[in-house]
Amino acid sequence: MPVSLPDFRSGMRQLAAAVNVITCGCAPQRNGLTATAVMSLTAEPPQLGVAVNKNASAFEPLRSHGRFAVNVLSRHQIDVAAAFSNSTGLKGENRFTTGVWDTMTTGAPTLEHATVVFDCTLAREIDLGTHILLVGLIEAVRVNPNEPLLYMDGNWAGLVKHEQRK
Amino acid sequence: MPVSLPDFRSGMRQLAAAVNVITCGCAPQRNGLTATAVMSLTAEPPQLGVAVNKNASAFEPLRSHGRFAVNVLSRHQIDVAAAFSNSTGLKGENRFTTGVWDTMTTGAPTLEHATVVFDCTLAREIDLGTHILLVGLIEAVRVNPNEPLLYMDGNWAGLVKHEQRK
Repeated sequence: MPVSLPDFRSGMRQLAAAVNVITCGCAPQRNGLTATAVMSLTAEPPQLGVAVNKNASAFEPLRSHGRFAVNVLSRHQIDVAAAFSNSTGLKGENRFTTGVWDTMTTGAPTLEHATVVFDCTLAREIDLGTHILLVGLIEAVRVNPNEPLLYMDGNWAGLVKHEQRK
Repeated sequence: MPVSLPDFRSGMRQLAAAVNVITCGCAPQRNGLTATAVMSLTAEPPQLGVAVNKNASAFEPLRSHGRFAVNVLSRHQIDVAAAFSNSTGLKGENRFTTGVWDTMTTGAPTLEHATVVFDCTLAREIDLGTHILLVGLIEAVRVNPNEPLLYMDGNWAGLVKHEQRK
């Protein structure tokens, strides 16, 4: 028998992850949401996966545009993570007043100074029930190595290389 | 046109992630591998996803057993992460000489002192080309909150809560 929802949540709280903002659309009708459920799927072709709740305000726009960007946040971008979560009450274009946004190949909104940006076309949608797995074919990558923003156990966190910890 | 393999890799190196060991089987025929591509998929039912390369030695055992555990490593378990990667040359049961292993509900090998263990039955396989996404229905969770082991840009790393960083 599967675990209860509280047990699931208590476990997932301990799975540290990078914080990402997933974006789509063109100004003044852009959309986006903060997500930790992002991972590499295949290298050839270059694909990643994002699990998105069907109830998220940005869910239908993400599907219908067919292009999206995964902006992996730096630790200096907590304000962006907050603007694209439900904590501020902002929706749609109003979320983009935080951060500096440009575009790359697909036209999806891409975040300046993000640790890395993956600019994607939507290759496939896999229905998982409450969530959809969006499979993105990566059309462009922009790397800006800096310290990433992490999330674990309800807290923002940073990363320290192992050597520094003694 | 999708990005090149080097561009894909340079981007993914910047996506920090928790380090996990995925395990299956019963002693003396256990198998497992180290993976960072693990994420939450749905809360109801409680499901997670693991992207596994079809060329991995543990790939066929993971599919055929129909049960697996995701052991999310603590920062004190770098030796376990190494034993289950290709860096040591160990395969199969020999990988389990590192770490202290027990079982929970499904019988899959579970790691003592892991930050969290998700004990799963295989609910679905999704073919992604070079990789398969294994969808696990979570049958049991064991939480042992401690500092997680992370991986980014080719290095092991640790996590620090944001408040501590100034």
